[in-house]
Amino acid sequence: MLTDSLIKKIQETRAPIVVGLDPRLGQIPEYIKETIFAEMGRTPQAVAEIFYVFNKGIIDKIHDIVPAVKPQIAMYEMYGAAGLDAYTRTIEYAQSKRLFVIGDVKRSDIASTAEAYSTAHIGQLNIAGEIQDRATANFITLSPYMGFDNIEPYLADCREFDKGLFVLVKTSNTSSRDIQDVLTNDGKPIYAHVGELVSKWGEPLIGEMGYSAIGAVVGATHPDEAVQLRKIMPHTFFLVPGYGAQGGSGKDLKGLWNGEKYGMIVNSSRGITGAYASGKFATNEKEFALAAREAVLDMKADLEAYM
Amino acid sequence: MLTDSLIKKIQETRAPIVVGLDPRLGQIPEYIKETIFAEMGRTPQAVAEIFYVFNKGIIDKIHDIVPAVKPQIAMYEMYGAAGLDAYTRTIEYAQSKRLFVIGDVKRSDIASTAEAYSTAHIGQLNIAGEIQDRATANFITLSPYMGFDNIEPYLADCREFDKGLFVLVKTSNTSSRDIQDVLTNDGKPIYAHVGELVSKWGEPLIGEMGYSAIGAVVGATHPDEAVQLRKIMPHTFFLVPGYGAQGGSGKDLKGLWNGEKYGMIVNSSRGITGAYASGKFATNEKEFALAAREAVLDMKADLEAYM
Repeated sequence: MLTDSLIKKIQETRAPIVVGLDPRLGQIPEYIKETIFAEMGRTPQAVAEIFYVFNKGIIDKIHDIVPAVKPQIAMYEMYGAAGLDAYTRTIEYAQSKRLFVIGDVKRSDIASTAEAYSTAHIGQLNIAGEIQDRATANFITLSPYMGFDNIEPYLADCREFDKGLFVLVKTSNTSSRDIQDVLTNDGKPIYAHVGELVSKWGEPLIGEMGYSAIGAVVGATHPDEAVQLRKIMPHTFFLVPGYGAQGGSGKDLKGLWNGEKYGMIVNSSRGITGAYASGKFATNEKEFALAAREAVLDMKADLEAYM
Repeated sequence: MLTDSLIKKIQETRAPIVVGLDPRLGQIPEYIKETIFAEMGRTPQAVAEIFYVFNKGIIDKIHDIVPAVKPQIAMYEMYGAAGLDAYTRTIEYAQSKRLFVIGDVKRSDIASTAEAYSTAHIGQLNIAGEIQDRATANFITLSPYMGFDNIEPYLADCREFDKGLFVLVKTSNTSSRDIQDVLTNDGKPIYAHVGELVSKWGEPLIGEMGYSAIGAVVGATHPDEAVQLRKIMPHTFFLVPGYGAQGGSGKDLKGLWNGEKYGMIVNSSRGITGAYASGKFATNEKEFALAAREAVLDMKADLEAYM
């Protein structure tokens, strides 16, 4: 089962870390952009190539020390079809380096539409009997607002192709309180209600390490809520955004570890891929990937101190 | 303001109808598929062309009697970059026929990511100073679970490029009750709480017809809840899915009209684009677009009877 494999890889690397691959043109070294723009013009195809070259550089330098990467599809989707192609190529390259890929897509829609999204992102594309050869993510993120019949259509692909999901429960942003913190008439916040639902939805898919293939997104920026959710959801593996650039630190995650079984994987995006511009690590832009590696090791030390 | 323009077009056509362009390979006439597969093979590129030809056929036959179409991006995204290209070409063709386009994308993410989605779907793409020429939807749908800082980044593009949003409030599917119907400690359901938020978020963008550029998605399958939301959200224009194939009828929408200002636009997808296979309209598959036109006129009569 996929979550078992992910946890084993976390144990091997001793790094419960996923590197967010959310490329932004403004944050990519000039020398990469100059070369490719000169060759291909200021086109979406050029940006797609720039993103791929940048991601490949990062992946080459971190694939031996982390278990997973998480491309944020919005950054690619912004550049249309060419961008989406860079997203898929990034997945393919990361998997060729034995990294797990969490596709951060946060989709959600009614059942017949969810089937299409599932095929798009974790399934197999069959065109009039011809199976298409293409890479898809190992896990994707989903939004829960529309309820279980929006999640269920993904489960067939999870079972058939050994894939997994992370459903939003308590997100890292400030406005997560607008809906997620509203108290129900039982006196508990909506995020706790959603946590109970996600935990229940995941029960039929629990692996040998005790965690379900349906995980939850729980932000590092809300440590008290995260600890509460850890108790409500003992069989749910957490994807934790909000570390680093968004303000969360190793200390905030103290109450969440579950010994050698970890129980979560923590994401950092800009804090790693933009490390060369932070002044804390290698600062030459040609060493952006080395700086990323140094930032991963720094994050690992920060997490370990509180594990 | 865009919602004003949409309402004027509804008044002109007397059809508060949006035609869902959600192509599924299994529902497209054989003669279209045969020709294109023979030429291009069973490839994503061929499916993209099939979808575009099918959509173009529908648009040519209905553009004079409805104000808008709503492509569901999942159906295109399933076919990767080629599919996304068919989505964009469909938007472009529909707009060339003076139809408004509602991109059904249901995206949502933290602010920095929402900016990328906004650029992707309603904004302008600027690559290192070069503005890219491409079509984007007039409106898009968004999911509210992560709160206002996930919606706010779209407002700049709404203002600058005269675009609009529809935020999910009470969706048409059965499991919408899992979260949306949970009662808060004030005794009201979450969908009512979200309705109040969406109404408040939309206040700065109210047009001369009295409706905001931030609309709401309210399902036809929950008529009592919809009437309640109509009262809570007097300045919010509704996008109403769930009519036809999903079970909603004109009668269910009785309490929702607001005279000549309408107050909502009702979506039908399969009920219109798949009408040739229903036995109720033109049944020759070569007349799929004529059947769609007949189904639109039938739906119009059903809605008018209760307006």
